[in-house]
Amino acid sequence: MSAVIDGGATPALVVPSVDVAPESQPVGWRHRHLLDVDGLTRADLELVMHTADAMREVLARPIAKVPALRGRNVTILFYEASTRTRVSFEVAAKNLSADVVNIAAASSSVTKGESLVDTVRTVEALGAQMLVMRHGVSGAPYLAAEVFGGAVLNGGDGWHAHPTQALLDLYTMRSRLGDGGSIGVEGRKVVILGDVLHSRVARSNIWSLTAAGADLWLCGPPTLLRGFDAWASRGAAAGRRFTVTSDVDAALRDAEVVMALRIQRERMASGLLPSLREYAARYGLTRERLGHARPDALVMHPGPMNEGVEIAPDVAIGAQSVITDQVTNGVAIRMALLYLLAGVHAAGSSDA
Amino acid sequence: MSAVIDGGATPALVVPSVDVAPESQPVGWRHRHLLDVDGLTRADLELVMHTADAMREVLARPIAKVPALRGRNVTILFYEASTRTRVSFEVAAKNLSADVVNIAAASSSVTKGESLVDTVRTVEALGAQMLVMRHGVSGAPYLAAEVFGGAVLNGGDGWHAHPTQALLDLYTMRSRLGDGGSIGVEGRKVVILGDVLHSRVARSNIWSLTAAGADLWLCGPPTLLRGFDAWASRGAAAGRRFTVTSDVDAALRDAEVVMALRIQRERMASGLLPSLREYAARYGLTRERLGHARPDALVMHPGPMNEGVEIAPDVAIGAQSVITDQVTNGVAIRMALLYLLAGVHAAGSSDA
Amino acid sequence: MSAVIDGGATPALVVPSVDVAPESQPVGWRHRHLLDVDGLTRADLELVMHTADAMREVLARPIAKVPALRGRNVTILFYEASTRTRVSFEVAAKNLSADVVNIAAASSSVTKGESLVDTVRTVEALGAQMLVMRHGVSGAPYLAAEVFGGAVLNGGDGWHAHPTQALLDLYTMRSRLGDGGSIGVEGRKVVILGDVLHSRVARSNIWSLTAAGADLWLCGPPTLLRGFDAWASRGAAAGRRFTVTSDVDAALRDAEVVMALRIQRERMASGLLPSLREYAARYGLTRERLGHARPDALVMHPGPMNEGVEIAPDVAIGAQSVITDQVTNGVAIRMALLYLLAGVHAAGSSDA
Repeated sequence: MSAVIDGGATPALVVPSVDVAPESQPVGWRHRHLLDVDGLTRADLELVMHTADAMREVLARPIAKVPALRGRNVTILFYEASTRTRVSFEVAAKNLSADVVNIAAASSSVTKGESLVDTVRTVEALGAQMLVMRHGVSGAPYLAAEVFGGAVLNGGDGWHAHPTQALLDLYTMRSRLGDGGSIGVEGRKVVILGDVLHSRVARSNIWSLTAAGADLWLCGPPTLLRGFDAWASRGAAAGRRFTVTSDVDAALRDAEVVMALRIQRERMASGLLPSLREYAARYGLTRERLGHARPDALVMHPGPMNEGVEIAPDVAIGAQSVITDQVTNGVAIRMALLYLLAGVHAAGSSDA
Repeated sequence: MSAVIDGGATPALVVPSVDVAPESQPVGWRHRHLLDVDGLTRADLELVMHTADAMREVLARPIAKVPALRGRNVTILFYEASTRTRVSFEVAAKNLSADVVNIAAASSSVTKGESLVDTVRTVEALGAQMLVMRHGVSGAPYLAAEVFGGAVLNGGDGWHAHPTQALLDLYTMRSRLGDGGSIGVEGRKVVILGDVLHSRVARSNIWSLTAAGADLWLCGPPTLLRGFDAWASRGAAAGRRFTVTSDVDAALRDAEVVMALRIQRERMASGLLPSLREYAARYGLTRERLGHARPDALVMHPGPMNEGVEIAPDVAIGAQSVITDQVTNGVAIRMALLYLLAGVHAAGSSDA
Repeated sequence: MSAVIDGGATPALVVPSVDVAPESQPVGWRHRHLLDVDGLTRADLELVMHTADAMREVLARPIAKVPALRGRNVTILFYEASTRTRVSFEVAAKNLSADVVNIAAASSSVTKGESLVDTVRTVEALGAQMLVMRHGVSGAPYLAAEVFGGAVLNGGDGWHAHPTQALLDLYTMRSRLGDGGSIGVEGRKVVILGDVLHSRVARSNIWSLTAAGADLWLCGPPTLLRGFDAWASRGAAAGRRFTVTSDVDAALRDAEVVMALRIQRERMASGLLPSLREYAARYGLTRERLGHARPDALVMHPGPMNEGVEIAPDVAIGAQSVITDQVTNGVAIRMALLYLLAGVHAAGSSDA
């Protein structure tokens, strides 16, 4: 049985009953693909969050499995190395009883020079009904979505987007700050700290957090914030709260959420950062620096962490850290998205 | 319930009911392994095709799964990179409810220098009941079949053979040219175009297509056809229709099927080809060149394609192309072969 | 139904009924992890052996599967290449109906520099309930066990330990030498021959074989036995029978079990061995040399073998060889261990 929930400011929401196949019930999800979060409405975000609640309940069962997607083929095509995202999608799909096919592109025909479009057509002809894809080139999943007949889920493309990460981040904040009915980040000060320039995690979070009404701050060395001032100005013009600064004390002051981003060693080579040690000294999320934030501020990180660089080890595992929650919530969010997208395709009616 | 089909010129055929385990019914398949197509009789080919028809019907179901091989262990041991063949076997086995174990030899103990025979014995002792194998050395699966107690399926060995590819190619031609009862390539002009010399796909297709009565033409640069003249002469002596030529216009004239083969870049280094550009100009399957064939000629390619080299992009996705059909038919053919081979081993009576 | 077996000298033993979930019955297993064999009591060893008997019975069924661990997540995290151990755990877990997630660390985030502790926390947050781990650093699984909430099974760590190998070796000896009620190696002369110094297989076998009362001999070149004399002296002081020698004739004389170890080529580079040819001539297990042992002595090898180096090909596949038995027994032993460890965690009461 699906349940109707009064979302407060948002319209009444029909949350699916996730123990059964998605096409057996009416669900208000219309998107064929999940390529980024920028096209999701407030009602879409609420539906994803409530469906993820139902999935968390499944995860808490002795046998964390429902038959909802039994016999459906979920193909995970990753052109970049990954543990957490790849395994998270795999576990999510298996928890829904789907059949999972893993393709690590480095060890596949892709090395023979086949084009992305050909690979996607081939994967569909092999039986893929849902395609989870990570690619080093920004926009690659959009190209895939043009030729793939089923649902494409972007598992990260270049520096562009990582929508399931942004949704699991939002879900994690909501579970700590919200009241169940609302997302709970409205008006809350959220700081993203670090290498924003090269981060698809940051880009997708900017969309979803400002859409959900957060007071968003981006902070890092000026070389790693290039271009975001203009985005912030456009955002402000559209009524979004969005501040860009290299002043870490100002950014952290009274923050309610601090999300540190991974610093990649290859940035040193390109001259964007003088040294990891200097980065750690000036922008690393230490216990002392975290003291500027609210005492109950949440500490987040998309992983994998360079402990001692962008985040101090004691902060990473401290009482305020919700980093392992993010990982578990990621499974629930991906179960929710696979479920909602499968429903659209099985029903056969949808917009783009 | 299995069904008896009158195959016209061929004897009556018992097609298995693929929803149930193969050993529960009489099926006229006697081969323990699938190493190449050269040992298959006309009746064997018919049985594979009709069983694949049943599998295509399974693939069209909302849940494309039957319990026929439940609990059986299918191990996929690949010593060369592959997407389509590896995934095709994996999906085929999972659709039959088998348990699949993937071993990519490059990342396995095989790199420790273990012999092939030892690896095969080990894989069997670990529980493998069916072994799908790709190996860079021609003949390797024959060696495996000597020591393996279950069924060996050759997924490609060196330049020698790729029997499931030849069978899916034949099946694809039959589904377009045949009448369901007969294979339909009898007397039809079929052209294999490109690097025949290094192609296991070509070698297996030569056997199956001439056995099925096609008028087979091989075409490519003289350096990539070496030795096939002698084979053609022997074939002609045995009543097979088999022409070898470097005259691409003569080869394509009135053809009913044109199969382009992948050109591998490493052939340039060995001096067998002057340049990819020159190859494309003289032998590439362009729209203009395809104009010499019949207007409804089928365009095929085993993949992965070098678009713009051996095949023009507009031909690859044109109305005459059945290239993605080949991929889907590959899943059906591999389901059929896994099913038929499993039946022989479960019944415990068979010839070699 | 579980069965009570009178173990003779050992106390009565409750063998679980492995067709059902482990938490549904009382089983006398208390360990949360399997890190090495040194903490296992004689009663523990008996319980593992009897449970493996039940698993061998499952393996002999037409469908070798029980639902005991249905829906449980077994994650296999391997930092070193492996075929037999990795696949053995995978098949064992699937035979128990668990969901298996494979992570090959070389192609994962681990290459991004994430710490082992972080990886283990992440894997648990992703849903892992049992973690099978192989790592190049001795002791790594102990570190993992400190932070992982479920069961850690050591699949080999550095030169330190390989407990499932030692248990499958003991089980293989028992099935040939024992009477079902007792392990059967008491007082029997067992020889481990080869590169003991670098062998985690040897180290774990030393613990379990001397605990089970075997008359253990280690034999190899003096450079590959360094430090084991001291261990043997301590063992003798504790009542264990343990001899170290480079005299291969003395070692093999009247032996009842001869286990040859793999010689790794990289030992030549480090100056520990002059050449593979010389090693083969002086210590290789040839038919002639095996003639010193009892006529029915068992020949064992943990694999993968360098045939012609540490073992002659005719000995490897001769009538006395139980090498493929070891592989199949490995699946049964790992099923038994997964089953017993799952029971402890599901019941929620255990010691460390």
